[in-house]
This record gives sequence, structure tokens and C-alpha cells, in this order.
Amino acid sequence: MILQSIQYKDGVLTLLDQTKLPHDIQYVDCTDYEAVAVAIEDMIVRGAPAIGITAAYGVVIGALQYNGDKDFKIYMQDVITRLSNTRPTAINLLWALGRTKEVITEDVNQTIVALENLAQHIYEEDKSINDRIGKHTLPLIKPNSTFITHCNPGSLATSALGTATAGFYLAHAQEIPFKVFSDETRPRFQGALTAFELSQAGIDVTTITDSTTATVLQQQDVTAVIVGCDRVALNGDVVNKIGTLPLAIAAKFYNVPFYVAAPTPTFDLTVSSGDAIPIEARNTREVTHIYDNKVAADVAVYNPAFDITPNSLITGLITEHGIIEAQEQAITKLFEEIKA
Amino acid sequence: MILQSIQYKDGVLTLLDQTKLPHDIQYVDCTDYEAVAVAIEDMIVRGAPAIGITAAYGVVIGALQYNGDKDFKIYMQDVITRLSNTRPTAINLLWALGRTKEVITEDVNQTIVALENLAQHIYEEDKSINDRIGKHTLPLIKPNSTFITHCNPGSLATSALGTATAGFYLAHAQEIPFKVFSDETRPRFQGALTAFELSQAGIDVTTITDSTTATVLQQQDVTAVIVGCDRVALNGDVVNKIGTLPLAIAAKFYNVPFYVAAPTPTFDLTVSSGDAIPIEARNTREVTHIYDNKVAADVAVYNPAFDITPNSLITGLITEHGIIEAQEQAITKLFEEIKA
Repeated sequence: MILQSIQYKDGVLTLLDQTKLPHDIQYVDCTDYEAVAVAIEDMIVRGAPAIGITAAYGVVIGALQYNGDKDFKIYMQDVITRLSNTRPTAINLLWALGRTKEVITEDVNQTIVALENLAQHIYEEDKSINDRIGKHTLPLIKPNSTFITHCNPGSLATSALGTATAGFYLAHAQEIPFKVFSDETRPRFQGALTAFELSQAGIDVTTITDSTTATVLQQQDVTAVIVGCDRVALNGDVVNKIGTLPLAIAAKFYNVPFYVAAPTPTFDLTVSSGDAIPIEARNTREVTHIYDNKVAADVAVYNPAFDITPNSLITGLITEHGIIEAQEQAITKLFEEIKA
Repeated sequence: MILQSIQYKDGVLTLLDQTKLPHDIQYVDCTDYEAVAVAIEDMIVRGAPAIGITAAYGVVIGALQYNGDKDFKIYMQDVITRLSNTRPTAINLLWALGRTKEVITEDVNQTIVALENLAQHIYEEDKSINDRIGKHTLPLIKPNSTFITHCNPGSLATSALGTATAGFYLAHAQEIPFKVFSDETRPRFQGALTAFELSQAGIDVTTITDSTTATVLQQQDVTAVIVGCDRVALNGDVVNKIGTLPLAIAAKFYNVPFYVAAPTPTFDLTVSSGDAIPIEARNTREVTHIYDNKVAADVAVYNPAFDITPNSLITGLITEHGIIEAQEQAITKLFEEIKA
């Protein structure tokens, strides 16, 4: 079974509440764009592709709420601004919202239809990207191979098979035996979502703490590390969930290939390198408390949500168009080919 | 203020209750050797050196409780057996109890005095090791330097200044400004104890997740990483709390010196290299639950308590006799000098 994180029907956006997983499977219905914005902020929905899709539907819902008090185009700009201020790092959010702007006209009803079609198109596009990334990952998954993944680059973070996990689902469907180590991904334990969704699908998955990834690389014959990403810079530097960088460094130290599943919408060609990408510093309570239990002392806390992995540590970027080098030349070439 | 985890006066052993830290500072008075045994079992006192000292005082208290019902030497053997069955894997415990056996005679009063002197001696010995490691660490702590540490190699685990933390306390006393990043150390969050004890002493300390250490190494001008250890092999490989290995790999990648504070009693010259040291796999509940909250999916869990850092990643071992190379030749030379 693959869980669906986002469903939309007749003005109602239904989100799987990922803050309740893996213990409870609960859904949240949003009929108000402010509720959609809060769902993104509170990580009820999370994962760069899923955030982009959700934001696109948030704009649809905003348009449906229009009551004529203001100029429609000014009102829609307010809706888009609110949604764009939810999370700063994932480029998919800005990319999806940018696309919605292009279909907004003075005609309210026409705009609603166009926005619904666009959101549906972004959703379908993501599903197709997942499938194609999966197909390009599949050749890496030989019988009895072993992988490490980080955070949740899975079906829960996207529309369908996930990005880094897509190959796992396809290989499992072909009955290829392999195993996956999923690290817990402090502070928010999104690794539990990966362990949950892979085990739901029947894939052999083991949970480890983030620090144990180095020991697994040291002790076992790991085939590759495969992670997702939130943004790829022009030079191939990757911004992804905190914990990606130490995993890439350890993979390099043990000569284990390190792949990043990177749909083309996560590339930001306007940013020359990773250090120019803003990194969201999140609430320190994520580190100091687990539910209501305090696990830290009363001292300063530094809680960046993402880290920057330099291109030199990346074996390849798995895009929907194939695996490319994490280098400016290869990235520029790919985007020229797409345009052509 | 440096918190004292162990204090003894006139038949009363006062232990800082480490299960209540960092939220509450509570002390437990033990006037009964059974209470001392339970305090070790329940981790009211923890850290290998601290456990050894506590056990030695437990034997003193046992002798003070003697009421003449049994033969004194048989009675004392029962006391030692009870204390030795608390945490059978801690080598310092058996080492300290072995030393108490040597001073027990038929003369009750003489034995009590000898045991008190011995416990005090073990305590002072550990304190002296802490001080001397601190003095050898101090030259590394220049004004405005920045350090990363892991787990709790601090005063709470020892008699006085701790091992990896000893230099921090001495530098702070000299009013040298510096800062420390203390990672939380999943799964048991011993980093909270380090953050707590350093902040209590007025040292500038910041809590980060284990994965964030790489980002701190990437972004900041880190002077050195300093950690403690559980065992050092003849070739200089170090066994320490899980999470030490990835920190050492990341430090190497960013050319940041990586030091291990290693009292000579932690060297095991019978073991040629780290991979010959058996690594304890602990209860998976440490990873899956925090208090009563489940934070993992229902999948397999791999939870090694320690990892093995190869000597090639270690800049130096800070012993009480000075900083030496983590290499067989340097280690053999040091132990030959101590013997001579």
C-alpha cells in the first residue's frame, strides 16, 4: 500500500497529517487558503514536491474564497504572498506559485478553472517525475544490495512513488531482494515516515540513529546512499534536510556512491552555489522537546533545518531525464536539452 | 559552579541524581550499601570513573553497617558481590572493588579506616587525572576559539573536571572566552548533561543535533573537536559513544583537529586494534521511544552503543601524561615510561 499525502476534490484539499505519522493515519481537510498555509508551516504536509503541489491547490482555494471586496488580482497576490511566506528553502514552493501567477486574469471564474487545471497538471507532472526517477534508479538496485537513505524523500513527500524511494518501490515490485537503512533524521524524525512507508510496501528496512550511518558504512557493504533534495544550485551543490552533509562526507570517506534524487523543478539555476541558498532556522523547541518531554538543557540551541552538500561529494543527480554529474556543465546541458 | 556528582562525609555518600538532570538538581543520600548498589543500577550515578568511585564508597558504607551477626570477612564478601552485580560490564567497577578486597582484614575498625582511605585515594587519583588532562588541553583553548564535543565526558561522569571538559573548566577559570557546541548524542541524549554542566559553570555552550556538527564544522572556524573515550586499543583506535566516528570523519574533511581525552586506565593494550573490540548492541527501545512517546515506525532497529574511530582520524590522545599520537609506537613508549 502506498499512502496518498495530497488529494483534492471540489474545493477541498485533503492532506495526510504527517505530524501524526507513523502512529496515526489522520487527514486534515482545508477549505481556506490560510489553513493551507498553516499546514505547510506546521509540516502537516512536508517534502519539497508535496509543498509545491499543496501551495498550487492553496491558490485554487484562495480564488474560490474571493468575495469581491478587493480587486481580484490584488487579492490573489495577497494569497500567493501568504503561501510563499510559509517555508523559505524549498524552491518547489516558489516555482509552483510562480506558475499560478501566470494564469491569473481579471476573470474570476476563468481563473478558478485555469488554476484547478494547473494544480492538477503540477500533481500529474510530479507523479510522472517520480516514475521516471524510479526508472533511472532501478539499475543501481542489484539483488542483495544495501542502501542508506535520509529523511523522507518518499511517497509521503510527493504525489506518488517519491524521489529517492521511487527506485526502491519499482525494484520491490520486480521482486529484487535488497535492504534499506533509514536514519531517524533528528530533530523531526522524518526517517520514521520513510521506515513506515517502505515497510508498509513490504520493503526490508532498518531504523538507525543519524550517527549510526557512519558505522553502517564502515561495517557493511553499502551499495549506495540515495537521498532527496530541497534545492540544487547551478554548480550542483545540494540543499537537503540537515544530516545530508555528514552522510555525504562519510560516504566519500568509505568510497560509497552518493546519489541525490533531484527532479528538475528542484534546480535553481539563478543560484550559482549552495552557500547562496537561504537556510531556514527552525524553532529550537524541535530540538529541546519531544512531545512534552524536555530532552535538552536550558542553553542556546542552533537548529538549521537544512544543510549544504558540496558537489564534490555527489556521485550523481538522478533527474527524471537520467543521472547527470553534479557539475555546472552537465546541469546547463540538461536544461538546454529540455528547452530545445 | 561545577556540580559534584559524588561527595562522601562521615558515613554518608551523597550522589547527584543524574536521572533527574538537567531539569532538577536533586541529591540522594546513601547510608546503606544496598542503596549505593541501587543508585548504580538505576544510573543515578553514571560514567565509568564515577561508578568505580561510588562502588569503593559503597564498600566503606557496608563495613560501617556491620553488626557482628556474621563473620566480618564473609559479610564483606557479600557486600562486594552485591555491588559488583550492579553493572557487570563497567571495568572501573570491578577494578575499584578488587582494590577494596586487598585492604579487608579481620579487624573491623582498622578495615573501615583503610577502606575510607582507599576510596578517598581512588577519588583523588581520578581528580588528579582530570586536572592533568585539563592542563594538557588548556594550550588548545585560545581566546575566541570554538570547540565541538560529544556525549558527556564531563564532571558528572568523573570525580571533578571530567576528561574532555577539563580544559574548558580551566580555561573558563582563567577568563579565556571560548564557545562549545555540544551535540545531543542520540539515542540517550547525554549531550544534555554536558550542556547542563558547562552552562552551570558559566561556559558559553550551544546544543545542536548530532547531524548539525558537520554544518558547524563547515560554517564556523572550529578550533578542535574534543571527545572522551571508553577504550583505546594498542594501535590508537578509539571506542567511544556512537556518533564519535562521523564527527571524526567530518573533522578530517574540514581539516579540524580531532582530540580524544584518554586517561591511561582506558587504554587496553591487550587489544591490537579497534575492530577487535566487541560493540554492545543495546535495547532498541532507546531508539524507538523517548519516555513513553514512540518516535519510530514498527521496523527492525540497529542500536550499537559505541563506534570505532580509526587512529588515522585522531590528531592526538590527551592523556594525563601529555598529548600523544594515536599510534602504537607512541602508546607503547608512554606505558614503558610509566612503568619505569
